[in-house]
Amino acid sequence: MSAEFLSRWRERVEAALDALLPPESRWPATLHRAMRYSVMAGGKRLRPVLALAAASVGGGDLDAILPAACGLEMIHTYSLIHDDLPALDDDDWRRGVPTCHKEFGEATAILAGDALLTHGLECFCLHPAEAKYDAARARTAAAVAAAIGTEGMIGGQMEDIEAEREGAGGERSPARLERIHAHKTGALIRASLAVGGILSFASEETLRLLDRYGESLGLAFQIKDDLLDVESTREELGKATGKDVAHGKMTFPGLLGVEESRRRLAETVEAARSAAEELERGYGPLGDLARFVASRKS
Amino acid sequence: MSAEFLSRWRERVEAALDALLPPESRWPATLHRAMRYSVMAGGKRLRPVLALAAASVGGGDLDAILPAACGLEMIHTYSLIHDDLPALDDDDWRRGVPTCHKEFGEATAILAGDALLTHGLECFCLHPAEAKYDAARARTAAAVAAAIGTEGMIGGQMEDIEAEREGAGGERSPARLERIHAHKTGALIRASLAVGGILSFASEETLRLLDRYGESLGLAFQIKDDLLDVESTREELGKATGKDVAHGKMTFPGLLGVEESRRRLAETVEAARSAAEELERGYGPLGDLARFVASRKS
Repeated sequence: MSAEFLSRWRERVEAALDALLPPESRWPATLHRAMRYSVMAGGKRLRPVLALAAASVGGGDLDAILPAACGLEMIHTYSLIHDDLPALDDDDWRRGVPTCHKEFGEATAILAGDALLTHGLECFCLHPAEAKYDAARARTAAAVAAAIGTEGMIGGQMEDIEAEREGAGGERSPARLERIHAHKTGALIRASLAVGGILSFASEETLRLLDRYGESLGLAFQIKDDLLDVESTREELGKATGKDVAHGKMTFPGLLGVEESRRRLAETVEAARSAAEELERGYGPLGDLARFVASRKS
Repeated sequence: MSAEFLSRWRERVEAALDALLPPESRWPATLHRAMRYSVMAGGKRLRPVLALAAASVGGGDLDAILPAACGLEMIHTYSLIHDDLPALDDDDWRRGVPTCHKEFGEATAILAGDALLTHGLECFCLHPAEAKYDAARARTAAAVAAAIGTEGMIGGQMEDIEAEREGAGGERSPARLERIHAHKTGALIRASLAVGGILSFASEETLRLLDRYGESLGLAFQIKDDLLDVESTREELGKATGKDVAHGKMTFPGLLGVEESRRRLAETVEAARSAAEELERGYGPLGDLARFVASRKS
């Protein structure tokens, strides 16, 4: 039943993204094409589905919340496009296809990222449009903006770059790695749960519990990502593998070893599932998503 | 008296920007330094002052609106940082100092731009915090996001790049040039007036008139910018001059000649002043700003 929640909503997220993104035929066509290319290339749609799962806890109106939830995927895609740029991670492959700047050139990729960030935040300001969401809209947009600002996602990306520049001479510790990831990927995952919570008018207590769930889930997600980088092939993953090691990047397997990383993964997934159980009073979509994050192949 | 409005509020905008931007000492320090470097390098602060002048028409609470108005300057600065990047306009000087990427490197400049866009939009979601602005906050943020999205500022930047790529073989007409500028610079100027209007709870009629003023002012601003590029030195302007001609960019003097451009400038400034007079029932800050835009030296 929970797996059904996942696949049903993932499909609806795809359809909603398609409806929310400007058509390719409309001016400026190249830019709209680049945005759609990167957003519609697939991906797990984890963040919108997390927002919807969080909203389902308090009986939120998932249909009404769907367009705002899609803003999370636009923002996630913006961060991927900019991270992949030559001046940053310089990646050629993403989601199984050439990265945005390989396909459209650097100028268009920079602008497509800017546009997805802008349109993503706009989604929270516009949806849901009903008057009862008046205060919630601005609160949601502000929560996401804070999560992806300098003290959130962008800050994590900055420290990630600095750690790579410092190389072997810099601080290389699990604490620094966790700080990078808590900001670079964790903050937006936590914000996704906050979006669902705020837009379903959850109590402060539920919001706190959702945040605890998101914190564990985000860490689990990143440990799994690092493990996939050493354990998968490019075909399975849709992007380059073994790249972290090649670039001397800090990773959980690199700092802790594969076995200890797996143990940490199991531990953080368990923490997420325990928070989910408290929220869902049993087994529901959030618990299922925690299991999915640990077992995914890409 | 009106000139006093300008200089008084410009100073207060400086102080508010300083208070709103994260301190350089705070993590991630490099990023905060880069953001402050570009925002605090000066500039006319035209957009926040326009928002405040628009709000003063309807007797808005300018002190309450000030932090939101500062979001406009952050967003304007983000657009300058990204436009100056090597993949886009490749500019080395801005506001009299090296551009952000010359000073901090390309990766940091991309992230600093992203961060200023994010924090800029966040300003509209958070300020003014009073409950009576609950619906107005999200409406303001959405209006600005629409103005700087693909069908606004970013779209204009995209077409500007495409026009430059096409060179002599592409369409080179006053109509295309006006379309580029109406989006690239005009949309944010109009949004600045909308911010002041919405946050002072202006009537739909006043909002329409503010928009008419903004449309003329934005065009006047750009014609003047093009004229300054051929008539000024780098020292006066704080950035490279004669660059438009060197790059084969379309400009008003290039397409219409200097004399006809001056005539168009006078005409559009007059249109802005006439709208201002209707709004201010005489001579006030908006009328003064229209005069300033036409007579400025940088």
